Amino acid sequence: MRYDLYIVTDSKLSHGMAHAEVAAKAVKGGADIIQLRDKNMSKRELYLTALEMRQIAKDGGASFIVNDCVEVALAAKADGVHLGQDDLPLEAARRISPPGFIIGISVGSAAQARKAEEGGADYVALSPVFDTATKADVGPGKGLEVLREIHEVVSIPIVAIGGIDKGNVRSVLAAGADGIAVISAVVGQKDVEGAAREMKTLIARSKGKKA
Amino acid sequence: MRYDLYIVTDSKLSHGMAHAEVAAKAVKGGADIIQLRDKNMSKRELYLTALEMRQIAKDGGASFIVNDCVEVALAAKADGVHLGQDDLPLEAARRISPPGFIIGISVGSAAQARKAEEGGADYVALSPVFDTATKADVGPGKGLEVLREIHEVVSIPIVAIGGIDKGNVRSVLAAGADGIAVISAVVGQKDVEGAAREMKTLIARSKGKKA
Repeated sequence: MRYDLYIVTDSKLSHGMAHAEVAAKAVKGGADIIQLRDKNMSKRELYLTALEMRQIAKDGGASFIVNDCVEVALAAKADGVHLGQDDLPLEAARRISPPGFIIGISVGSAAQARKAEEGGADYVALSPVFDTATKADVGPGKGLEVLREIHEVVSIPIVAIGGIDKGNVRSVLAAGADGIAVISAVVGQKDVEGAAREMKTLIARSKGKKA
Repeated sequence: MRYDLYIVTDSKLSHGMAHAEVAAKAVKGGADIIQLRDKNMSKRELYLTALEMRQIAKDGGASFIVNDCVEVALAAKADGVHLGQDDLPLEAARRISPPGFIIGISVGSAAQARKAEEGGADYVALSPVFDTATKADVGPGKGLEVLREIHEVVSIPIVAIGGIDKGNVRSVLAAGADGIAVISAVVGQKDVEGAAREMKTLIARSKGKKA
């Protein structure tokens, strides 16, 4: 699985576009992973949306991850789920998931990252790496130093999220991130496809490879 | 599985007692099923509470059901899950559950009950049968007439919930309910065990059998 450009949808930022529409544009622009994140939908709505997004990801060769909700991820046959520290614990989620199911864990420190890797996480996401207004509840940015610390202690892929834009993506990759996750920098833009493509190109250049 | 007395926990009504404590008393008083219902806990907390309640149910020979959350029910190895109309759809929940896993569906009409049975539900719960203040969001009581209609069209067990107390339990059973589900009439009482036992005796007498 490729983590370079990881797009998280947010219907409140998307100028009235539905999750699936945003996802389709992001995938067209080169997103490697799309994550469905919606804290307000009922589980029924989330499931129906996940079915749409899964198809879009599949058609575009991207991976599809559901935020928080393991049962929706499983029922919609997503590639995986992304869990925070208050969600179903990693070992419990693993127990009810099929082989190969991706489980990513949000972490805020090297200790949490190490624990996630030891518990069998497929990747960790440092959240938030910088200050951000998009996720209201996540607190201040942890900074690149914490990202470097995580890079020292884990060998699974590291995704960085929170306040990343065109101006700082190179420094985030240089600090050890394998993937760049963005919400507002792509799904909050009028031209979602163009914003995704630009970010993808920047990531590819920073990593010294073709987009 | 026996549905006679189905107790739903509610930490807001329980005079400061934790779910597991209430469940233990209810099981001791004769509850056939205990359901963990908490709309405010994080999924991590819900899971940890479910592990405790599952053990209590097992030790007391009762069944254990988790409200709303399929992933917590599966991960905690509950006997089943209870789903509302806005939760993961029945067919999706069934797809990710092991054989023998109980799925109950809240219904408000004979049409919904019939659909649930056709979709493979193990039981339906008419909710609310009478007006109730305990579940703030469920609207006015459907009445015994709707219960009779459901009894006409389905053959799976019917549980009635909402506003049931010692005074009306006999009429609810007479209208076709196989089981009586209560929240405040048991878990809101100071003597939970005694209230459960009294209700169990009433149900047994109404059904013409020993408690």
